[in-house]
Amino acid sequence: MTTLMAEAGARPAAEDKEALFAALATRFGDRLSRSQALREQHANTLTWLKVQAPDAVLFAETTDEVADAVKACAAARVPVIPFGTGTSLEGHLNAPLGGLSLDLSRMNRVLAVHEPDLDCTVEPGVTRKQLNEYLRDTGLFFPVDPGADASLGGMAATRASGTNAVRYGTMRDLVLGLTAVLADGRIVTTGGRARKSAAGYDLTRLLIGSEGTLGVITSLTLKLYGIPETILAGVAPSTRWKAPCNATIAALQMGLPLARIELLDEVQIRGCNAYSDLTLPEKPTLCLEFHGTEAGTREQVEMFAEIAGGEGGGELDWAERQEDRNRLWQARHDAYWAARGLGPAADLIATDVCVPISALAACVAETKRDIERLGLLAPIVGHVGDGNFHVMPLIDPADATERANVQDFLDRLAERALRFEGTCTGEHGVGQGKIGYLAAEHGLGVDVMIAIKKALDPLNILNPGKIFAIP
Amino acid sequence: MTTLMAEAGARPAAEDKEALFAALATRFGDRLSRSQALREQHANTLTWLKVQAPDAVLFAETTDEVADAVKACAAARVPVIPFGTGTSLEGHLNAPLGGLSLDLSRMNRVLAVHEPDLDCTVEPGVTRKQLNEYLRDTGLFFPVDPGADASLGGMAATRASGTNAVRYGTMRDLVLGLTAVLADGRIVTTGGRARKSAAGYDLTRLLIGSEGTLGVITSLTLKLYGIPETILAGVAPSTRWKAPCNATIAALQMGLPLARIELLDEVQIRGCNAYSDLTLPEKPTLCLEFHGTEAGTREQVEMFAEIAGGEGGGELDWAERQEDRNRLWQARHDAYWAARGLGPAADLIATDVCVPISALAACVAETKRDIERLGLLAPIVGHVGDGNFHVMPLIDPADATERANVQDFLDRLAERALRFEGTCTGEHGVGQGKIGYLAAEHGLGVDVMIAIKKALDPLNILNPGKIFAIP
Repeated sequence: MTTLMAEAGARPAAEDKEALFAALATRFGDRLSRSQALREQHANTLTWLKVQAPDAVLFAETTDEVADAVKACAAARVPVIPFGTGTSLEGHLNAPLGGLSLDLSRMNRVLAVHEPDLDCTVEPGVTRKQLNEYLRDTGLFFPVDPGADASLGGMAATRASGTNAVRYGTMRDLVLGLTAVLADGRIVTTGGRARKSAAGYDLTRLLIGSEGTLGVITSLTLKLYGIPETILAGVAPSTRWKAPCNATIAALQMGLPLARIELLDEVQIRGCNAYSDLTLPEKPTLCLEFHGTEAGTREQVEMFAEIAGGEGGGELDWAERQEDRNRLWQARHDAYWAARGLGPAADLIATDVCVPISALAACVAETKRDIERLGLLAPIVGHVGDGNFHVMPLIDPADATERANVQDFLDRLAERALRFEGTCTGEHGVGQGKIGYLAAEHGLGVDVMIAIKKALDPLNILNPGKIFAIP
Repeated sequence: MTTLMAEAGARPAAEDKEALFAALATRFGDRLSRSQALREQHANTLTWLKVQAPDAVLFAETTDEVADAVKACAAARVPVIPFGTGTSLEGHLNAPLGGLSLDLSRMNRVLAVHEPDLDCTVEPGVTRKQLNEYLRDTGLFFPVDPGADASLGGMAATRASGTNAVRYGTMRDLVLGLTAVLADGRIVTTGGRARKSAAGYDLTRLLIGSEGTLGVITSLTLKLYGIPETILAGVAPSTRWKAPCNATIAALQMGLPLARIELLDEVQIRGCNAYSDLTLPEKPTLCLEFHGTEAGTREQVEMFAEIAGGEGGGELDWAERQEDRNRLWQARHDAYWAARGLGPAADLIATDVCVPISALAACVAETKRDIERLGLLAPIVGHVGDGNFHVMPLIDPADATERANVQDFLDRLAERALRFEGTCTGEHGVGQGKIGYLAAEHGLGVDVMIAIKKALDPLNILNPGKIFAIP
């Protein structure tokens, strides 16, 4: 299955492109760059997909500047690829047709915080850690936590989630509204500050997860939460996946508000021990976190321990001190880098799928058998509460047979997730890497997506070659 | 401001329409009806908007039948208006251009319940009470509760919510996926059973709240929750709106998982006392509900009482017995009928707006001053936790001056909500009644909605004349 499709359609002659970049340089000065190093750094870097650098990089600083740049690119038929921090994993930032990488990292101001309303408005280049640092004194926090210190604009564009989605939801749930520049340079504001609205089509949700193909997000209004009075975290070594999955199911049915529930397999634990200087037993390991009042959190812990005991889960080891908790979650968040360290000079492919939670243990078991059969080194980390898991095969990029084997493995993984009524990606998005799976997952839905894309971006200017191949 | 706009565009000649209905009668027998009483009952009935009956009513029983009917209507350029239980409030069911009312109430089977995954799949005619009755033995429930025993398809189509959205979310949050018949009769399935997905555009959320203008929903997969171990409900009379709003803000900031928090004004309490045979003091009254474990719920109650005390709120009176709770919430749910009973032979207009919670008290106060100035009888009921409130002016439909006054009042209410950074409708939808407010709320967003509508329904077959006027 080929996963790198380019788009059909006429593109500008080289001299028109040059004229565009000359005009942009005049308008933006040295904020327009054609340096090769910068262009390559702005293409996809965190996957095994081939780097396809844009022709130029522009550092925009305001919504109006974004609008002007998009208008100019549209007039010249030059693609625009929005860029946040460059941490996406499926080739979202590649420029298969060339074009302008629109770097939004300098749009990094927190525009407003409304404490009584538990919301804030930020520019797209604000990262999640930056926002939480900014919010610290308010007692509020923004919960979505994909691991990387990604930009909030990028997180919205890829519908990111992460370890505590089971409790707080994903970007789909936590963006109240946004401002975006459309393909023709017009500026649209969707949603607002009301907690809910029934006023017309949900354009906010349409833009979230559209991966820059429908608009360039230039501000976001986000839901915030109060920092819980008490946080308890713990780890429990396990013998297999079934028991922790069943415990999670039982806990969710009882309404236990699990804040985080992660399962790292023995391979990943080995990597984390080495990378983060831990001494965890090399077994599948459940990492848990509970948020609440002091009494409520303790009650949750007791209830979960009872449930897990009933399901044959191991003893829970609780980290009450913040520094222990931080160490634990830092190790979890460094799973990607820890996995990279497991093998010599290897590329790492970070992929994810998501299935109904009742199918998680079986889907992981099949996947592990496939890994064994192929002799791959491929740690697995699961967001158990969502039925979402990551597999990170390490490969030698120079080994063509291994590449082909791993591509087959990825194809089977996506097919397996769909067979279990799941999705080919729970949180990484489609980008270039998963275009080939979308028809199997959505059928006619892909045609509907393309019809919407054509209606809103008839010239196919915005991040072309991502999500789907336009016929 | 005119709120009843018809659509431009050619419509079928009378004989083509007759040929269509003859063909449908042949195909569907007496499930196609042209009876005037049935046609009028299938138009808008719960608002003061003029009834615009469809030309015929078809009772569909399967997705394929819906697809066949839509295909036939599309071929004849005859509008299709999906119908669930007829409880929508903004004229969604009117047929300003005539057409076929597609009654889905016989598609009322629960297709699957997946207990470990906390989800179920239902046909669109299943009502929320029917589903919860069906689920009773599983210990699970579906929380969205708009008051009326509406169909789940209609609730999705109008992005309904209700009293416990503050805890469990709205239809936007609780529909995992759906099947819909598109304007050309093709059947699309969106979303799925995975808890989250980053696989392409969020077509599920696009259809939710599209009010039948983009597709006819023929099945839905819904998130379910465990019935809480303990439920505590209580009422507290209040002196004004500010204290309960502040208490709610403080409680939400502390992460107190309020399940329901409603504020009924003194006029509404008078109506409820009369209609539901209660003896509540005729004061603004807060109705609360907490869900959780036994210890957790009691802790919530204590914390809320402390917060409310600090804000100058009244003493809370707790209803621990289920029958007392049921009586309380039944009275709350009957607010619409109770309001109708406040005046003689009057029409009632049920409208709603939603603002950031910090603006709720001020927005309600301004609204109450406007009600007083106009001498209207208009109870107010607020979903305080969402910043959402309903106003229900009673009017004498024969009094043209009063009608004009009330229209001005509604216009000002919508403008006021927007001025407070809110929305012209939190949960009732746009239908015909609020078309006039959408441009002020969304600006260019309305053009984007229309572009999507034209891309997916170029003939403007699906529920034309709702949400926006197509130029």
